[in-house]
Amino acid sequence: MLKEAIYHRPKNNFAYAYDDDTLHIMLQTKKDDLTSVSLIHGDPYHWEKEQWITETLPMEKTGSSELNDYWKAAIKPPYRRLRYGFEVSDGAETSIYTERGFYDEAPGDTADYFAFPFLNPADVFTAPEWVRQTTWYQIFPERYGNGDPSLNPEGTLAWGSADPTPTNFFGGDFQGVIDHLDHLVELGINGIYFTPIFKAYSNHKYDTIDYMEIDPQFGDKETFRKLVRACHERGIKVMLDAVFNHSGYYFPPFQDVLAKEQASKYRDWFHLRELPIKTEPVPNYDTFAFVHTMPKLNTEHPEVKRYLLDVARYWIKEFDIDGWRLDVANEIDHAFWREFRRVVKSAKPDAYILGEIWHDSMPWLQGDQFDAVMNYPFTNGAVEFFAKDTMKAGEFADTITKVLHMYPDNVNEVAFNLLDSHDTPRILTLAGEEKARVKLLYLFQLSFIGTPCIYYGDEIGMSGGQDPGCRECMIWDEEEQDRNLFSFVQQLLNYRGAVPAFGNDGSFRFLETNDDTGVIVYEKFNEKNRLIFVVNNGDQQQTFTLDALADKQAKTLFTGE
Amino acid sequence: MLKEAIYHRPKNNFAYAYDDDTLHIMLQTKKDDLTSVSLIHGDPYHWEKEQWITETLPMEKTGSSELNDYWKAAIKPPYRRLRYGFEVSDGAETSIYTERGFYDEAPGDTADYFAFPFLNPADVFTAPEWVRQTTWYQIFPERYGNGDPSLNPEGTLAWGSADPTPTNFFGGDFQGVIDHLDHLVELGINGIYFTPIFKAYSNHKYDTIDYMEIDPQFGDKETFRKLVRACHERGIKVMLDAVFNHSGYYFPPFQDVLAKEQASKYRDWFHLRELPIKTEPVPNYDTFAFVHTMPKLNTEHPEVKRYLLDVARYWIKEFDIDGWRLDVANEIDHAFWREFRRVVKSAKPDAYILGEIWHDSMPWLQGDQFDAVMNYPFTNGAVEFFAKDTMKAGEFADTITKVLHMYPDNVNEVAFNLLDSHDTPRILTLAGEEKARVKLLYLFQLSFIGTPCIYYGDEIGMSGGQDPGCRECMIWDEEEQDRNLFSFVQQLLNYRGAVPAFGNDGSFRFLETNDDTGVIVYEKFNEKNRLIFVVNNGDQQQTFTLDALADKQAKTLFTGE
Repeated sequence: MLKEAIYHRPKNNFAYAYDDDTLHIMLQTKKDDLTSVSLIHGDPYHWEKEQWITETLPMEKTGSSELNDYWKAAIKPPYRRLRYGFEVSDGAETSIYTERGFYDEAPGDTADYFAFPFLNPADVFTAPEWVRQTTWYQIFPERYGNGDPSLNPEGTLAWGSADPTPTNFFGGDFQGVIDHLDHLVELGINGIYFTPIFKAYSNHKYDTIDYMEIDPQFGDKETFRKLVRACHERGIKVMLDAVFNHSGYYFPPFQDVLAKEQASKYRDWFHLRELPIKTEPVPNYDTFAFVHTMPKLNTEHPEVKRYLLDVARYWIKEFDIDGWRLDVANEIDHAFWREFRRVVKSAKPDAYILGEIWHDSMPWLQGDQFDAVMNYPFTNGAVEFFAKDTMKAGEFADTITKVLHMYPDNVNEVAFNLLDSHDTPRILTLAGEEKARVKLLYLFQLSFIGTPCIYYGDEIGMSGGQDPGCRECMIWDEEEQDRNLFSFVQQLLNYRGAVPAFGNDGSFRFLETNDDTGVIVYEKFNEKNRLIFVVNNGDQQQTFTLDALADKQAKTLFTGE
Repeated sequence: MLKEAIYHRPKNNFAYAYDDDTLHIMLQTKKDDLTSVSLIHGDPYHWEKEQWITETLPMEKTGSSELNDYWKAAIKPPYRRLRYGFEVSDGAETSIYTERGFYDEAPGDTADYFAFPFLNPADVFTAPEWVRQTTWYQIFPERYGNGDPSLNPEGTLAWGSADPTPTNFFGGDFQGVIDHLDHLVELGINGIYFTPIFKAYSNHKYDTIDYMEIDPQFGDKETFRKLVRACHERGIKVMLDAVFNHSGYYFPPFQDVLAKEQASKYRDWFHLRELPIKTEPVPNYDTFAFVHTMPKLNTEHPEVKRYLLDVARYWIKEFDIDGWRLDVANEIDHAFWREFRRVVKSAKPDAYILGEIWHDSMPWLQGDQFDAVMNYPFTNGAVEFFAKDTMKAGEFADTITKVLHMYPDNVNEVAFNLLDSHDTPRILTLAGEEKARVKLLYLFQLSFIGTPCIYYGDEIGMSGGQDPGCRECMIWDEEEQDRNLFSFVQQLLNYRGAVPAFGNDGSFRFLETNDDTGVIVYEKFNEKNRLIFVVNNGDQQQTFTLDALADKQAKTLFTGE
């Protein structure tokens, strides 16, 4: 038994409250090392005749990654308190794993065991209920539809008449979105994530000038209000992009610092390392990356904090938006995000908070900060296996299983699962223009746990490389749209809504993978239904016998047979 | 190489800001498996010619426990951002460990690596500066000194005339503490932790009746004010015990619930499972343990929250106390403690917050909740090795090394290291009345990293079993005090103050241990000094040759030779 590879720490994905009554406990072990794991548990204060009273619950191996097995158990402690340890066995040797280490026999003193001291509802990770049933659609407003040419910025190009560049404009606006909401209703999505809409300098608007104003090229506040209402009437939630890590260069407080330097009252709104300000060779003030037009905001400064929290509250209270996506969320202090959550949830209790974080995000997903993050670890696996074909079937299963065990189940159920975005090449491009690969990507994404997001235009077969390539004008000429792909996505979204086990009311697990053929088999299941997905990611047609279905009756979901 | 046993997750003790400039990164590996570990690191945005620019820093093996080696590095990222991975080698094989797993060659994409996205000062764990230099002394007020017999509760027994029971009284009070402050100054401590002083029913006062009133047996608010002033004049900080997990049975809101049941406006102040209230066979409302006289407070209820936070603020603002020790801190929600921290620190920025938690406390020590916890994992190791002699020298070193690597360094430097308390038998009793063992306990405790706490009377050789045994009256007759032990502790505290490496300005590490003789050798060192402690925990006299001192000059601290 490889004790050195057995890991547990009573927090995060290893021990958490799934809901107000239920704890989930997980143990990580060396792959294929142990034959059984049981949870030894009891109320810390339940003693009889000077003996601590415990029970033993077998744990289930819920998955394996390249190096590890994961074992889980769910338990409802009657008094919401738990002390626990693990009985681990490799068939030959049995040992008791506790906070103090390994024992041959279960120790009698509760103090040796791991503790989940009390299940307090206030600490339970809780995302808004509607999020679990949401499919997002990401819109880059400058490129979705030009519904009001009177707003076109100077030099606006005719729709789709040129490749996107870092600086050109095509006049996309709110009216253009309103005009095309039927497309989204037809597709079946029920949430829109808009990249920034506030007054800014660039076409992507990530360099804010005024967080309290709509960029005039998109419309005014009345048009925005109309847009939100039109979405809500169609059951579509609206999420805006909060670019709080940095402002734009033309943000008046930064301009004030440039002009008045030491004398500027906004001096401490930024992180200036010295004065006067220099932008070359690297800025002598903190920025996003080394981009001098994006000075980092000092979110620890009380005035900056007040300003940004007012912004967060304003757009919810005045325009009834449903969520905030937080740009470069990982580089802002946790203390700020905790206050942000308090402000947002008090303005609208079921508002959604989504962080842009590309890496392991556990520290932000403990219930006190974000409801979800953009799940790029999921993206990486899906894209490398289905689109790029640079990952074998087994490695894909390992990757996805690892991602699922990185976070608590209630976090996974609202993870923002994207395949691409305005920051990456489009999936069709990543898939070498092979539509069949894009279909498999959608099949996997839309049958997976979490809340999927479709990047505008992908659903009708648009392609495009790393930005600015991925930010081209939406194609509205149906002749040029891939309506077959559209129908395919539509059908999957229909299943997601109509068949609970297809979406978020089903557990996920891999059944088989085959590195040679590229076939993977996974299932989604709940108490009522069991869906088995047999996916051929190889180039050859395959005949596949499914052991799991031997002697069983099954219905093909796609054909109804 | 045992990859399955290599563990890192970018938070907590594995990756943290030590101060506003410095990150500490730690890797855990199988014991004696690897010969070297290096940190591969770079700014995530520092690219040249499409290549990410990294540097490599050797990591130091800072200790080993029974199963693991720990490797650490400190680094000051120029732009406060870090992506990193580990180059691990067992001499034969070298591999690169990243967030996405193991690679033969260092991957070129930053996205594969672990991230410490930004070192925000707001998130740095920061305890009050004075705490690092503090030695605490714990006083159980009913048993320290009876300075004002006019306050004696009915039935008070003559001082020390009987064994302590769960219900008897000896009349200890504030005047009794004031009268004996010289004893504490002479000993050399500079902080007092008082167990509860608020109006309560029992002799231990953990069953509060009124959080805004002093228990009349101890004095009034004026006497308390005098006590705090007298302490401050002597450079002694004052910490009170906040019993916020539960109230007492006679707390008026609970009495109101008992009387009015469903109609009580305090119904939701507690966790009632049903009405009417029953106390047998187990209470049908949440309590501390199953003690019906200690109903658990609903700290999620806005009124309860406001009441308790007012209490926290009041005693700081009105009486200038310096800290709160939080009873049963682990069973209250994190959300409450975060608000508590904001209130306390805004009332007094350098107030100290100490949680009572007996187990792994990492979730409370992330900078947003507590400054320290009662370090019982340290206690267990020290008591089992030095006092009870139930642990071998090697196991002791493993245990202490594991404790030190469980938390960040800045957490360890303010850990509340106790040997015993009002909740455990006294150390002399645990040591089978062997004074020599108690001396070794003090030597180890007072030369260790953290802030030590001495339980009243231990320093003059008092003994006593599990409570109530450990709560006897302080012995003030010098004839009955062990003045030799007192002088020994006094001398150690003097070293702790006068020799920086002896106290908190020295790193700790074990040099040798010998299971047969019971000898352990450890060192405390900083840039200026190196102190080597050779401790014989065995029953036989030993001659010991110290390899570390071969060919070196050394001075014996105790003799000056």
